[in-house]
Amino acid sequence: MPSTLCKCGKEAFYFRRLSGEALCRRCFARSIERTVHRTVKREKLFTPDDRILIALSGGKDSVALAHILSKLEKPYRTKLFALTIDEGVSGYREEGISITRGVAETLGMEHHIVTFKEEYGHSLEEVYALSREHGTGLLGCTFCGIMRRRLLNDMAIRLGATKVATGHNLDDEAQTFLINILRGDIARLGRAGVQPVKVREGFVPRVKPLRYIPEKEIAAYVYMKGYPLYERECPYVRGSVRDEVRDILNGIEERHPGTKHAIVNGSDKLMEALKPSTEAATVGTCSRCGSPSSRGVCRMCEVLDMLGLGSNTFINHLAE
Amino acid sequence: MPSTLCKCGKEAFYFRRLSGEALCRRCFARSIERTVHRTVKREKLFTPDDRILIALSGGKDSVALAHILSKLEKPYRTKLFALTIDEGVSGYREEGISITRGVAETLGMEHHIVTFKEEYGHSLEEVYALSREHGTGLLGCTFCGIMRRRLLNDMAIRLGATKVATGHNLDDEAQTFLINILRGDIARLGRAGVQPVKVREGFVPRVKPLRYIPEKEIAAYVYMKGYPLYERECPYVRGSVRDEVRDILNGIEERHPGTKHAIVNGSDKLMEALKPSTEAATVGTCSRCGSPSSRGVCRMCEVLDMLGLGSNTFINHLAE
Repeated sequence: MPSTLCKCGKEAFYFRRLSGEALCRRCFARSIERTVHRTVKREKLFTPDDRILIALSGGKDSVALAHILSKLEKPYRTKLFALTIDEGVSGYREEGISITRGVAETLGMEHHIVTFKEEYGHSLEEVYALSREHGTGLLGCTFCGIMRRRLLNDMAIRLGATKVATGHNLDDEAQTFLINILRGDIARLGRAGVQPVKVREGFVPRVKPLRYIPEKEIAAYVYMKGYPLYERECPYVRGSVRDEVRDILNGIEERHPGTKHAIVNGSDKLMEALKPSTEAATVGTCSRCGSPSSRGVCRMCEVLDMLGLGSNTFINHLAE
Repeated sequence: MPSTLCKCGKEAFYFRRLSGEALCRRCFARSIERTVHRTVKREKLFTPDDRILIALSGGKDSVALAHILSKLEKPYRTKLFALTIDEGVSGYREEGISITRGVAETLGMEHHIVTFKEEYGHSLEEVYALSREHGTGLLGCTFCGIMRRRLLNDMAIRLGATKVATGHNLDDEAQTFLINILRGDIARLGRAGVQPVKVREGFVPRVKPLRYIPEKEIAAYVYMKGYPLYERECPYVRGSVRDEVRDILNGIEERHPGTKHAIVNGSDKLMEALKPSTEAATVGTCSRCGSPSSRGVCRMCEVLDMLGLGSNTFINHLAE
């Protein structure tokens, strides 16, 4: 049986069902990179002299992001550097941290590693133990998400970043949009929804250069580039709404190829149409810790209360 | 085992999972009617002296609609009358038509029946035969939907209706909204999306008083009121995207009760936020038949072409 060939004549590496293209390794990589570069250009994600902090977890999305963005550093006259957050989950997180070290070294990228333990005084494991003690009923991912997002923004400010780039891919973005729709959470769509450059008062602007690349293609790209795939799942992960929505979306995409792209493109158009109302919205500050928040008391302080920890325990570290 | 009781002390007839209420027949019926009345009031669906044409197919939704609205005729000083469209599907449609006659008689409501055959010159069966002959590849539902919507609006104009009321329920509305989201069809959301009073140039305004009532509750209400349930499925129905989305939504609702309500409430808020942009949009006219359409050539003329029928065949009837 003859192998399928790329239009350039080389042996095919990836079959893109949506377009019907068979792509060799080189054409596949170039097509991914072109899409990311086009996204950066069209959405004006970077401006000259931007200091862009890459959130580098060691997962495939963040690795692909660091690799692809490193090719844009010169033409865009930006400075790239990476931050890895070690949440503190023994027997699981070490592998990811080690991958990030290798990636940063390969790319010659300035790299910072911070830990929950040092920054907050408690590792995720310790926070989770406290949570069980206090019977909060919250999942490990809830704490982790809140603490990680806060620390990422805080570190971006501390390190003088003008943008934070995250590895959110097409699947993530379609899922997030759909979750908000299923919850009827239109305020969140408008306020902090899915958009190329997320600008909120008090936050370093966040950009998502991979938001038009399907998860599957990112995995193939990272594998092809010879990076190790960090496939183990965090032991704290439990079935979530996102898992349900992921399965639903994968099922629909299988039957109706192009649905994920349609959702994300639709969400872009919706953001455009909603712009006048969203621009008017301003973010307030948490009455406890003073950090930017759309609630009276921020989610972080709320969770600290549930854990029996005073605001000060964590927040002092952040205010340094 | 003692039977569950309604809070009024009577035996329960319906258990509403979302609120945890057990409701007797009377309290259940009153709760449904109250929701519809509140919808009519809050969304200002009726104005005094409105001549409201009920689209009465004979299905449970339209029967519930006619029954509940008939209680509002006096307090709102409106005139209600019903239209039944006989698409012409032998061995299936007769039962529904007979139900509509019974309902109109029971409610003492003026009732009109029109047929595709008389109005268009071709029954749905004949159109479908032509479609197979011409290999259009279109489903029976596609023709039926286009022809039915056109005829409903045309008859509303001819009969001097100021509003058309349809039986769309919560499930229908959540499905439609989600289908548009999955297609990324934001233009449709804004232009003709899910909204309580659908006003478009050239169309008699359409209202959906049942849009906050779940399908299951409508079925229980119609059964309880002693109307026959018209349960047979049209022989032309084939698996559609709507069927898929219905199954998905029923699955999510089962796991997360309240999702359908959240989606429809969210779509309301979204419509409100999009209002400035939607109000600006105007509907053009079809270059062939002159009927209102957002496309250059309306869907009806497009389909007539595919069937090898001149515009005139159908349109002359409508222009009378």
